[in-house]
Amino acid sequence: MGVKATIVMPADAPALKLANTRASGAEVVLHDRVKDSREEIGSGIAQKTGATVVPPYDHPWILTGQGTAGLEIVEQAKAAGVTLDAVAAPCSGGGLSTGIALAVKGLSPTTSVHAGEPAGFDDLARSLATGTKQKNDKLTGSICDALLAPTPGDVTFPLAQRLLGPGLVVTDDEVLDAMEVAFREFKLVVEPGGAVALASALTGKLPVKDRAVAVVCSGGNVDHATFARALGRRAT
Amino acid sequence: MGVKATIVMPADAPALKLANTRASGAEVVLHDRVKDSREEIGSGIAQKTGATVVPPYDHPWILTGQGTAGLEIVEQAKAAGVTLDAVAAPCSGGGLSTGIALAVKGLSPTTSVHAGEPAGFDDLARSLATGTKQKNDKLTGSICDALLAPTPGDVTFPLAQRLLGPGLVVTDDEVLDAMEVAFREFKLVVEPGGAVALASALTGKLPVKDRAVAVVCSGGNVDHATFARALGRRAT
Repeated sequence: MGVKATIVMPADAPALKLANTRASGAEVVLHDRVKDSREEIGSGIAQKTGATVVPPYDHPWILTGQGTAGLEIVEQAKAAGVTLDAVAAPCSGGGLSTGIALAVKGLSPTTSVHAGEPAGFDDLARSLATGTKQKNDKLTGSICDALLAPTPGDVTFPLAQRLLGPGLVVTDDEVLDAMEVAFREFKLVVEPGGAVALASALTGKLPVKDRAVAVVCSGGNVDHATFARALGRRAT
Repeated sequence: MGVKATIVMPADAPALKLANTRASGAEVVLHDRVKDSREEIGSGIAQKTGATVVPPYDHPWILTGQGTAGLEIVEQAKAAGVTLDAVAAPCSGGGLSTGIALAVKGLSPTTSVHAGEPAGFDDLARSLATGTKQKNDKLTGSICDALLAPTPGDVTFPLAQRLLGPGLVVTDDEVLDAMEVAFREFKLVVEPGGAVALASALTGKLPVKDRAVAVVCSGGNVDHATFARALGRRAT
């Protein structure tokens, strides 16, 4: 659309994501996940330049946009004559998962929708279990670099409480195994954070036996070295 | 369809392809690319068991089936308001490339269609250039294990002469680079033989500047080690 864009990104984001963002013409402002507030940096830039802040998840337009994936899932399932028992999607701040839940529960109310998170960064799973917003102890330390939001969003959490089933929590090793399965069986390159819902299905944390289940694999910004590590989990 | 299948496969096929074929329920009969005739082995099995031989390329039904990819390419281009200047596809015996050419030339006569081959196994390119069927000197020796047919087919070559533009020939290193680009830019796992047409576009052997070009990436049966080798061509 020819619009100038400034992207605020963690300094430890994959090099590939950083390079691709710059190659697409954006200016990148790096921040420290632990010391800096990306929200403050973003609104500071917006104030100075007149830019519009596009938040990663905590806005009705963002989550409804992401929810169009849910529309497609239900349409494709219907076209195949299938009523889905469950849908699972990756979750950081909850935009993708609650957006998908809005669409899926609206069109297919008997389908349960679940958010997948990395172990140690399962703020939404614990928030859903306790009924109040929980925070993660750490801000870094999982290969799922895109799923490290510290706590559910103010817009997304009430929706999550109303629409989502219990959270699904997977380890980094389970994520690497899921990436290898996506390579081997589906011929898809999936980044770690994008593979958590698939990992939950492959480990049985999301039961799939005799059930119709859809999982969302979202994002392929994975460095060569991390992908090679996933491949190394099972040699041929 | 519950039909018993016996697959005649080169003994040096990727381990992953072998494992996936067996996991799908087929019986696999291995043969030596240099010493054995897979056609003789196949027809011997068919005679003994009453099975029907499904050849890899040299049959009108096979190439028209593969040509449905050409129908989709032209339909998708039309939906995008684009008239294609060129289409390229991988080529071993010529089934996929001539099938696609039948569809594309029928629907979009101004589009040129090209077959991509690995260097040293460019029997079709040389056959098109000389006007008579040429044979490759070697039967093994490229990472493009699926593109090693020794000479164009009897059904496919006359079609190739009528429908295809000049052949495109790429080296193994150019193929590995194309696999890395498919990983990085398209998030797709493409096997070596499946990436030759993409390699021809990336190297400029198939000109793309200011032109509308479609390339077919076909096949993802690549071993972990070979894929890691492609990733290693460009580190992040």
